[in-house]
Amino acid sequence: MKKTLQKISDNTIRRLPRYLRALCELEVAGLERVSSVALGGMLGATSSQIRQDLNCFGEFGTQGYGYGVGLLKHAIEDILGKNRRYRSVLIGAGNIGRALMENRFFEENGFEPTAVFDVLPERIGTRIGGVRVFDVRDMPRRLSQFPAEVAVLCVPKDAAQSSAEQAVKLGVRAIWNFTNADICIENARVVVENIHFSDSLMTLGYRLRERQDTANAAQQTDRSA
Amino acid sequence: MKKTLQKISDNTIRRLPRYLRALCELEVAGLERVSSVALGGMLGATSSQIRQDLNCFGEFGTQGYGYGVGLLKHAIEDILGKNRRYRSVLIGAGNIGRALMENRFFEENGFEPTAVFDVLPERIGTRIGGVRVFDVRDMPRRLSQFPAEVAVLCVPKDAAQSSAEQAVKLGVRAIWNFTNADICIENARVVVENIHFSDSLMTLGYRLRERQDTANAAQQTDRSA
Repeated sequence: MKKTLQKISDNTIRRLPRYLRALCELEVAGLERVSSVALGGMLGATSSQIRQDLNCFGEFGTQGYGYGVGLLKHAIEDILGKNRRYRSVLIGAGNIGRALMENRFFEENGFEPTAVFDVLPERIGTRIGGVRVFDVRDMPRRLSQFPAEVAVLCVPKDAAQSSAEQAVKLGVRAIWNFTNADICIENARVVVENIHFSDSLMTLGYRLRERQDTANAAQQTDRSA
Repeated sequence: MKKTLQKISDNTIRRLPRYLRALCELEVAGLERVSSVALGGMLGATSSQIRQDLNCFGEFGTQGYGYGVGLLKHAIEDILGKNRRYRSVLIGAGNIGRALMENRFFEENGFEPTAVFDVLPERIGTRIGGVRVFDVRDMPRRLSQFPAEVAVLCVPKDAAQSSAEQAVKLGVRAIWNFTNADICIENARVVVENIHFSDSLMTLGYRLRERQDTANAAQQTDRSA
């Protein structure tokens, strides 16, 4: 218990879903155990990184045996809270919000969507992925009757901060932020998890440019040789 | 020039878009210069981290003056390749692909979408965000006539690896991967940038659970005291 309460680094947490995917593949392939070297090989990591990451959460491996695939998988699911259920609301029923609801990302990961909120009259009263769209002005009343832990924020950039603050005031404890804006919440107990499409695309642009420049430089060297 | 060719850490690259957002805000607010302390304050980072990150790319700041907002903004845009143009194709015209095309993420970041590919007959021949949807079987012919540097991958998980390999064979140099699957490309020159919705949601679940457990533990301590 003490182990799970210590502060784990963000990078370690972000690697856990990848471990989980690898373990699911191994389980499907019928493997019962895996060494840290083999797991590292699947994930492009060193065995010592694997051991270091997993040691943050307890003692899972045994020297000379490795990790039990099923056991480790269940342990990581537990660490990630995959077996819990969180009620969630979507704020902003535009393209991205709609895509998320219709792809059933929420249910698959234990997040039960209970309501959608939007400002546009033509959206209000419709259903997205089976969930009803309410007027955003009804959010206070609706959330006091049916509290939610998570808000999925898909509003325009300009409305990001105010929508987030309102949601937190209404009891929301975590914000999944798709607005491409940085959100600042004073309450340190509130979790903000960002999907910044633009940041990701810029990172891709950087890597692409970097490799092109390297290739060009190599070509120039060839020519002058 | 030498500076931009050295290998910069992934974490540093991923912070650059956030610097850029902060600098845009400062520019809109009419500020001409900013100290590393102030920039750090905006971003929740220390001034030494800011200086260390930016030093990777050259000498931008001056002791006692700080950074010129406009100059640094342009420099970071340049580093991120924002002023370049990359031709890109979307593979998979489902909800997410459609949302991306219609929100104009690509154009805003210098990625010009030239074609969409899909398998479904009812989608082929239509247009998404003004761009025509072709039969995925026409991809080889189409990409040999109109080469693209970037493929945005929005196909189902099971088709992720094969679609990525095909795109790379057809000359694509970077893959923006929305499939929630890990893609393995042998060619080290190809860039793979992932948006893993499930991973992000699992990370959110972890943080939420962690804070609930901490709160519960604190309550228990209170009660037993």
